[in-house]
Amino acid sequence: MNRDRIGGMNADELKYPGSHRIYIQGKMHPQVQVSMREIVQEDTVFPDGKTEPNAPVRVYDCSGPWGDSAYHGDEERGLPHLRADWIRERGDIEVEDGGGLKAANVTTPPTQRYYATQGIITPEMEYVAIRENLGRESVYRAVYDRFPSDKSRPEAAQMLLDELGTGMPRPSELEAQPGFGPTSLCSRADLAYQHPAVLQQGSHMPAFYTPEFVRDEIAAGRALIPVNINHPECEPMIIGRNFLCKVNANIGNSALASDIVKEVEKLRWAIHWGADTVMDLSTGKDIHRTREWILRNSPVPIGTVPMYQSLEKCSGAVAHLSWPVFRDTLIEQARQGVDYVTVHAALLRRFVPHTARRAAGIVSRGGSIIAKWMMIHQQENFLYTHWDEICDILATYDVAISIGDGLRPGAIADANDFAQLAELEVQGELTRRAWNKGVQVMNEGPGHVPMHLVPENMRKQLEWCYEAPFYTLGPLATDIAPGYDHITGAIGGALIARRGCAMLCYVTRKEHLGLPDKEDVREGVVTYKLAAHAADLAKGHPGAQLRDNALAKARFEFRWEDQFNLSLDPHRAREYHDLTLPHANAKKAHFCSMCGPDFCAMKLSQEIKNLDM
Amino acid sequence: MNRDRIGGMNADELKYPGSHRIYIQGKMHPQVQVSMREIVQEDTVFPDGKTEPNAPVRVYDCSGPWGDSAYHGDEERGLPHLRADWIRERGDIEVEDGGGLKAANVTTPPTQRYYATQGIITPEMEYVAIRENLGRESVYRAVYDRFPSDKSRPEAAQMLLDELGTGMPRPSELEAQPGFGPTSLCSRADLAYQHPAVLQQGSHMPAFYTPEFVRDEIAAGRALIPVNINHPECEPMIIGRNFLCKVNANIGNSALASDIVKEVEKLRWAIHWGADTVMDLSTGKDIHRTREWILRNSPVPIGTVPMYQSLEKCSGAVAHLSWPVFRDTLIEQARQGVDYVTVHAALLRRFVPHTARRAAGIVSRGGSIIAKWMMIHQQENFLYTHWDEICDILATYDVAISIGDGLRPGAIADANDFAQLAELEVQGELTRRAWNKGVQVMNEGPGHVPMHLVPENMRKQLEWCYEAPFYTLGPLATDIAPGYDHITGAIGGALIARRGCAMLCYVTRKEHLGLPDKEDVREGVVTYKLAAHAADLAKGHPGAQLRDNALAKARFEFRWEDQFNLSLDPHRAREYHDLTLPHANAKKAHFCSMCGPDFCAMKLSQEIKNLDM
Repeated sequence: MNRDRIGGMNADELKYPGSHRIYIQGKMHPQVQVSMREIVQEDTVFPDGKTEPNAPVRVYDCSGPWGDSAYHGDEERGLPHLRADWIRERGDIEVEDGGGLKAANVTTPPTQRYYATQGIITPEMEYVAIRENLGRESVYRAVYDRFPSDKSRPEAAQMLLDELGTGMPRPSELEAQPGFGPTSLCSRADLAYQHPAVLQQGSHMPAFYTPEFVRDEIAAGRALIPVNINHPECEPMIIGRNFLCKVNANIGNSALASDIVKEVEKLRWAIHWGADTVMDLSTGKDIHRTREWILRNSPVPIGTVPMYQSLEKCSGAVAHLSWPVFRDTLIEQARQGVDYVTVHAALLRRFVPHTARRAAGIVSRGGSIIAKWMMIHQQENFLYTHWDEICDILATYDVAISIGDGLRPGAIADANDFAQLAELEVQGELTRRAWNKGVQVMNEGPGHVPMHLVPENMRKQLEWCYEAPFYTLGPLATDIAPGYDHITGAIGGALIARRGCAMLCYVTRKEHLGLPDKEDVREGVVTYKLAAHAADLAKGHPGAQLRDNALAKARFEFRWEDQFNLSLDPHRAREYHDLTLPHANAKKAHFCSMCGPDFCAMKLSQEIKNLDM
Repeated sequence: MNRDRIGGMNADELKYPGSHRIYIQGKMHPQVQVSMREIVQEDTVFPDGKTEPNAPVRVYDCSGPWGDSAYHGDEERGLPHLRADWIRERGDIEVEDGGGLKAANVTTPPTQRYYATQGIITPEMEYVAIRENLGRESVYRAVYDRFPSDKSRPEAAQMLLDELGTGMPRPSELEAQPGFGPTSLCSRADLAYQHPAVLQQGSHMPAFYTPEFVRDEIAAGRALIPVNINHPECEPMIIGRNFLCKVNANIGNSALASDIVKEVEKLRWAIHWGADTVMDLSTGKDIHRTREWILRNSPVPIGTVPMYQSLEKCSGAVAHLSWPVFRDTLIEQARQGVDYVTVHAALLRRFVPHTARRAAGIVSRGGSIIAKWMMIHQQENFLYTHWDEICDILATYDVAISIGDGLRPGAIADANDFAQLAELEVQGELTRRAWNKGVQVMNEGPGHVPMHLVPENMRKQLEWCYEAPFYTLGPLATDIAPGYDHITGAIGGALIARRGCAMLCYVTRKEHLGLPDKEDVREGVVTYKLAAHAADLAKGHPGAQLRDNALAKARFEFRWEDQFNLSLDPHRAREYHDLTLPHANAKKAHFCSMCGPDFCAMKLSQEIKNLDM
């Protein structure tokens, strides 16, 4: 084990075994180099001793330069400015006092939404198109180029490339093609097979993502790329229901626990496991400086709730909050490079009394702050009354808006109640107005919702908020499992993502109980990645099943190392296997500890294949 | 801490804090005493210092006498024979050589199904009716009896008892009733409120379970009570989609790890956490003796896969298996008291070649054994050809049949394929035939299934198997998360249970990797209990939301101890809270470590309630 420490972590913890970083170059924008992780596999060994290679599997990678073994930066210096030239070359920005960038002209905001509506395909858009394809084209080619019959290969390859992963014919249908006889244990076509999914509510997944498709989705408001022009370190990623479902992880110190270096470590840890965005929810001291460290070291979009820092500026006194304090905080954060902000502008004064009879009242921190302010001052929410000014500020820097759901239910009993749905309707109104200012938008959603009420949430959000991406916290499918709320949230999360929710905010097992530690973050992120992936399979993302198929094939062939390496958490998979069969040769064994050699179904199943049927 | 050891466990581990055992007596059968756990709660304390009691919450309890602090038995002696008189008094059994019981007459099998079809309501049926009601009647009365207005109480109580938990009016509607003014923080009606659920596929939940309803469900084949007449220690429980969704946990030694005492400990551990049935999947030595210990100490139904012991009798040589060996094993287990058996009789010879092109072949142990036998002997499955004889044996002892799914998919790629569905159709045929013999039946189901293919499984099972209860292993919603497969299975499990799956077989995080240890069993059972509960909420079990409501109320009122005690795993909830706020007075604090005092949404929310709105 390499015991070099990276802050509180050791280097081995941040490595994926059997993997290396690759980059795929853009075609429209050759300066685009999309990072991915490629997992290499062992050969399949047949009973007669012959072998066949297994194509490497490419997976989405959120770790940025930190995940590239050739990168040797450190936290003090911050990450390279990947997007600096792209931003500069658009010629629509100017340098502010203090060195940051801002829009040169308010009528041409430097936002991905503005470009998209103007028909401009930015490098960011091509980046995400390549990223969402998961390197499938070359993988499929590799699979089919190995096909032994010269006669059938061109037809198979053509068929594959025509379809590129969606609704690939099953082997039995392939067999009807000339040259496709019954094949060996590791059928090539199986790797590309994917169950066809019928999408709901008007979503659709293309067979292959193109930059033009990305542009179109952003222009329609169905997707956003949260990338502040002052966060050039950020690798573009897209949030929208016709793409891979994304996962957000929260970090941030609180008044009771605070350490800047630890927050950067948490960031690296969260993105290592696959957090697509990270929200810095710090409420303690040094909020600005903590955020600076995070931003300069983050290859993923950083979100915040500016109300928290605003309240800190008022020493925690809600009564002293005001629009000027909030506005200045928002500008400060936008200049710093925050990629998206949660603003609870849809929580109107008249909704608050409807929370009085709830089981759990208001459970959103931002929501409860602004609700209390409204009750004290007997005035309408200043975030609502100053919405246009908020949007102008955000458009100046391409900060995306995540319209908060301050009245999200905090108990099963409160799900889908008047207060929640009333706010959702206002979120829709604010979405339109933000779009008109060129701002990219998503809407935040619940919360605690029983399974049967989840579809209504998604349906109403799509309808009332004009198909803007939905970003939910869970939803948690029951209240009775504190200590397991990452799982109650994964159930609701998979369910709503399958119906089109674009991003899930993770919940850790410490939810409702305490602050997550390192292991909680790992368990939380991986849990939400698997929930998001389950939804991607169901909604028919064209490349989603590739990894499942590769892992299942490795499992069936007893390629234990490949099985571990292909999994979301290879360290844990290997560790669990080691617990009962620690010897290295058990990683080659054609059985495992669960059933032993005589009762191994997969071993028997392979033997059956070798019998004459 | 009490450090008395119960085998490998200490006594405190097997206690639920703030809880005690209660028994509810039957009315038709006064000898029926249904065990439940009652969780007591602290009073609510209002800002003015006034207090109000919170009614205790009754929860389903699988632990039997082991969970009663007044019980002082031990494993050597075995549990008391709860059902001995009930069985004897029916007058339809006789004593076999060796002392066991069997049917006196083959035309009147002593099965719950036979009684149900004859219009007989057994003590077992009344037991489960009371059990499924979760002690709601008295809880609701307690809630309403506290209502301060004499004028409104009778009306409220009447309204409540009329509805008894289903579609309870929300507080706002209650306010329109005379005497119901705006109430305090802890609204009484909130505790009884439950979201109405629209059931799918013709299921329906009664507002209140009656013994007659239970009888009707069993007669229709929609439910079963697996209780062998030779397992008088067993507390009756019901498996059916119009009841609480149940969870099975597997235990059992394998060739690589074996210890009888440990298996009994695992049993007690699993039922402590809420396993409704336990399958003994032992394949190592001492199978008979291990099972004897388990049966004599189990208050829950025990299931087995008799093929495993049959194969052991053939020293692991599949070729030597035969109908006589299997028959004798089945009789041996039936006489011993096994409550249900998995038999892979629906896996026909002609289906096997369809597994050759699968990603993961055959992953069922029993399925692969019988498939290999068929391939070796080129004969039809002897379990299928001897089905009627199997049913006659099972009917003699009231052993329920769980028709196995030997061709369940072991990979996402294989879900809902020809082999799987072909077997399901035969399961339907065998279901009918077993019913005609008076045998109680359920059907086993997948496996690995992506979310969007789950509904087809449930729909076809209900249609093809005549609404017999479905009992699934997961299904796992993705293949890529080894080490987290309890969660991938909980996602699929909640989904299929919500659509009517009657029982979920748990999957531990060690699935695919190794043998579960004690913590894995705990995590696995609790995970599946929460998934089953999420489904119960969604399918509208009339008392399901009571516990969520009580926990949410405790949470909102900062009654930390009650929040822990009401949760599925109080030990873990408390442990997690202790990690950041270990001091005892933090359990009274009106905030927690997550946000600190200034940013506590619930604290702010309570303050808002006290402001003039």
